[in-house]
Amino acid sequence: MLILSNEEIARLLTMQDVMAALEPMYRDAVESRALLSPRFDNMMPTALEGAYYAFKHMGGGWPAQGIQALRINSDICTHPVIAGKPRRVKQPMADGRWVGLVLLFSTETGKLLAMFPDGVMQRLRVGAASGLGLKHLARENVSTLALIGTGWQAGAQLMAARAVRNFREVRVYSPQQKSREAFVARNKNVRAVDTVEACVEGADVILSATSSMVRVIDPKWLKPGMHVGSIKSQEIDGEVLDRCDRIFVHNRQQAKQYNNVMPGTPNVKEEHEQGWWREPARSYPDLGELLAERAPGRERADEITCFANNVGTGLQFAAAGALALRKAREQGVGRELPDDWFTEDVHP
Amino acid sequence: MLILSNEEIARLLTMQDVMAALEPMYRDAVESRALLSPRFDNMMPTALEGAYYAFKHMGGGWPAQGIQALRINSDICTHPVIAGKPRRVKQPMADGRWVGLVLLFSTETGKLLAMFPDGVMQRLRVGAASGLGLKHLARENVSTLALIGTGWQAGAQLMAARAVRNFREVRVYSPQQKSREAFVARNKNVRAVDTVEACVEGADVILSATSSMVRVIDPKWLKPGMHVGSIKSQEIDGEVLDRCDRIFVHNRQQAKQYNNVMPGTPNVKEEHEQGWWREPARSYPDLGELLAERAPGRERADEITCFANNVGTGLQFAAAGALALRKAREQGVGRELPDDWFTEDVHP
Repeated sequence: MLILSNEEIARLLTMQDVMAALEPMYRDAVESRALLSPRFDNMMPTALEGAYYAFKHMGGGWPAQGIQALRINSDICTHPVIAGKPRRVKQPMADGRWVGLVLLFSTETGKLLAMFPDGVMQRLRVGAASGLGLKHLARENVSTLALIGTGWQAGAQLMAARAVRNFREVRVYSPQQKSREAFVARNKNVRAVDTVEACVEGADVILSATSSMVRVIDPKWLKPGMHVGSIKSQEIDGEVLDRCDRIFVHNRQQAKQYNNVMPGTPNVKEEHEQGWWREPARSYPDLGELLAERAPGRERADEITCFANNVGTGLQFAAAGALALRKAREQGVGRELPDDWFTEDVHP
Repeated sequence: MLILSNEEIARLLTMQDVMAALEPMYRDAVESRALLSPRFDNMMPTALEGAYYAFKHMGGGWPAQGIQALRINSDICTHPVIAGKPRRVKQPMADGRWVGLVLLFSTETGKLLAMFPDGVMQRLRVGAASGLGLKHLARENVSTLALIGTGWQAGAQLMAARAVRNFREVRVYSPQQKSREAFVARNKNVRAVDTVEACVEGADVILSATSSMVRVIDPKWLKPGMHVGSIKSQEIDGEVLDRCDRIFVHNRQQAKQYNNVMPGTPNVKEEHEQGWWREPARSYPDLGELLAERAPGRERADEITCFANNVGTGLQFAAAGALALRKAREQGVGRELPDDWFTEDVHP
């Protein structure tokens, strides 16, 4: 059983790697050769004032790679208001750290093969999905990218966008100047702007990567020929979707999210009752259908295309995880623990 | 993060301990102070001929103990016919071993606190639930126990039954003489019998603990004043239930089992389409309601009582797991791994 760290995952996988690992999985999933299991969120009270405990997991099995993945998040959640808007913030209560884990099992032997923190892979998978959407939906000749958000995910959106298109100009906006400056310091050839309007003005592609729980993309910004990508469902709404000619969601099946809330859990409603990802949204085609050519991508230069609701799926962790595990074994990376700690000699 | 082995769990927990740990959890669950999440079974093809891969998990959070448990089974399943009846047999493909794991998380910090194989605790929890059912449903003056089944679970049924009632006579039956003899060798004051009729004749309590996928208890065996307990739903059927005056199931909520089957998975239907545990069964009260005195137990000596469908719940692993963890820490048992292997410094 191999223990990997976020740093090791980051060294093992490039954004291009992850995109290449995910593409065949999306096609297999459309053809029922990969099995996604729904996301499950369990929410209950915790000791921290105003917070709640959220235990979330999502899984996916991909027999072609012999891997079943389970990604688990064990979070103490709060909803502070930052720069006037409510955000979802996970509190690092584990000695100042967070708890997100990926477990990989073998579908051939049943063995637990590997465990690692989810952060780096989560960021790569969000970026890779967004990049695959952009690759198949945006015009070939896009030249200006507007990025809304300057966090950890925004950096991956930038990597992915640059991996599939040549942008002459990249502008970034977030409400806090400090965050913008830090982002520009970390990423080359990016210009920070003071207002969101200056960011999106004349852009060919708008990507949002925020933790906002209310709309961050204004429908009036959308112009013919544009591509828009968002991660959280709450970042856009019905009015934005109404302006788009062609809309893809990340994964239609993932709409089957089960929420399991203990009565009396504080503040939990906001998170799960906002957002447009409701029954009608399931009628949009998804990235798998786009990649499997079951749903057509952009057909005209003046269409407004949209890739939305980039929620994670367990199958992404199976695909990226299988690759990370193979590379780790090839390169001798990680810490091996005895298999028999994680197996047993009784028929359970 | 504490790694425990089956042997350590067996040393840490007695059947009495587990019963005492489970009782308040059942009451809390009925009062919505513990949160059960449904069992999820994912089934897909595997390499072994005629077999399928099953990835199953069930969870439960109990804030009173600050524990969220997740129990995972990663099995290569087959359905051979043994002694004329189909059974479900998990193949030990992990170097001759099986894969079942329990993970315990803190609902206060989010931390992964412990990991251990599920087998010993699984057996204790099945026995403990059955024992609690027997304690509150069987007559005080029962004296003869008929045990059908001689496997790993049957031993726990015997321990639990003896923990709550004084049996003068215990008889055991299974179709294979060798298995009966081995059981008698492992358990004191038990008599093996050659036919199931000789086993149940005149018994006050019948407990079945088999892996049978068809009925093993005949309705004509049921006599006034008897208590019947079974584990798998398939061991009894509607005709057996019709003979009972008072029926309790282990957990009504656990009826919410989600099956997620990849098309083309062999032999998987049998397992999930047999058994009586369908919509009408959800109308029976459950063990939590019995313990919380929301549903009356035995009221007359001549009633036939039944405790059925003793399927596992994640909450049992939270309750028994919390106890095992506390005892392990007190006694310095187990192997500590660094917490920072299982936490991260990025907001996932």
